[in-house]
Amino acid sequence: MNRSTRKSSGLSASELAKMIDHTKLGPDVTLEDIKLLCQQASTHKFASVCIPPCYVKEAKLMLLGEDAPLVGTVVGFPHGNSTRDSKQMEAHNAVRDGVKEIDMVMSIGQFKSGLMKEVQKDIEQVVLISYRKAIVKVIVECCLLTDQEIRTACLLAQNAGAHYVKTSTGFAHGGATVDDVKLMHKTVGGSLGIKASGGIRTHEQALALIKAGATRIGASASISIVEGMNHD
Amino acid sequence: MNRSTRKSSGLSASELAKMIDHTKLGPDVTLEDIKLLCQQASTHKFASVCIPPCYVKEAKLMLLGEDAPLVGTVVGFPHGNSTRDSKQMEAHNAVRDGVKEIDMVMSIGQFKSGLMKEVQKDIEQVVLISYRKAIVKVIVECCLLTDQEIRTACLLAQNAGAHYVKTSTGFAHGGATVDDVKLMHKTVGGSLGIKASGGIRTHEQALALIKAGATRIGASASISIVEGMNHD
Repeated sequence: MNRSTRKSSGLSASELAKMIDHTKLGPDVTLEDIKLLCQQASTHKFASVCIPPCYVKEAKLMLLGEDAPLVGTVVGFPHGNSTRDSKQMEAHNAVRDGVKEIDMVMSIGQFKSGLMKEVQKDIEQVVLISYRKAIVKVIVECCLLTDQEIRTACLLAQNAGAHYVKTSTGFAHGGATVDDVKLMHKTVGGSLGIKASGGIRTHEQALALIKAGATRIGASASISIVEGMNHD
Repeated sequence: MNRSTRKSSGLSASELAKMIDHTKLGPDVTLEDIKLLCQQASTHKFASVCIPPCYVKEAKLMLLGEDAPLVGTVVGFPHGNSTRDSKQMEAHNAVRDGVKEIDMVMSIGQFKSGLMKEVQKDIEQVVLISYRKAIVKVIVECCLLTDQEIRTACLLAQNAGAHYVKTSTGFAHGGATVDDVKLMHKTVGGSLGIKASGGIRTHEQALALIKAGATRIGASASISIVEGMNHD
């Protein structure tokens, strides 16, 4: 990394890597994909891998050791409208198998239906199951919400005991934006972490989102993002 | 419907309606959407409604009576890579709450990883939980599979005791095609039902898929599809 980049971002490449959840999600992710992802995460010392629930056991075996990246998975992904029982079961399976980070999707449709108690209870239950075992990030899917709804969703996640709010699943029509991250930061930035994810492909994008208030980045293009810094 | 349409399709509007699962799935589906869907399904006498798991109880209350359309929901939707336990829990919740049709997504990534036993066991467990309570349709997500993989997936679903194979979730890059339905029909058409879904918006599309071997149609544009027939 050259000095000007270092100065403008205030982050070294390794500091940036430690903020990235190296991610592979989607219907056709294979075990080979997960192996490669884990190798890359080890090499580049990313914060964690974020992977489909069915591969958690395998990823844990690939990432042994105290310094290894954490294993994270998703709950109710990507639509957020599975039953509460099944979300609890996913969370239970995840922590049983050693996951340290859970990215759960808020029940967006129920939220938009005004069923706030239902939505909050969903999150509370996952937080309870994960207590002292994993942190919980709540994906609010910003591109489907108004600014006021983003504020309300962030406060609801905070009330439910979540540790992070997260912008996007990456499977709706839009991903992380600087404006949304600023809004989330302004709303709960003092007490919750903020994860920006969805469509983040470049070093510059990642830095802009961090500058806006993101404390974690979710990306598949993680290597390009950190290697964009490796000019020194 | 005019005579030539009647003759060419061999189906009346009401016969076609009885082949349609009137569907509303996605992250931002609200309770109001579900109410409207159920009203439409009752009016047009569709086979069923296909809705997100979190609204099953409400839909059951909206569709009482022996002649009412059935309530169906999804399991592991739309990526198919949640844990087996959570799929079982979703199926359990669904049948407990009166669902008669379960559309589950095959674990596509595991299938592509060659983990056939895992994939089949997933389906078997949902079939077991649904035994005598609900039929199980297995979504294989054709657009992500080769022809050989479609054949293998259909046979695997058959071996696992499923009642239907289904082309698509509607959330991958492609939906139902005549060629895929023909292939599925050729492979398991004698013993399993075949549901075509994803991107079906017109009367003509629906008829072409039925001609190719589809025995059920999943659609959101169900009213346009049947009203395309109402010319008499």
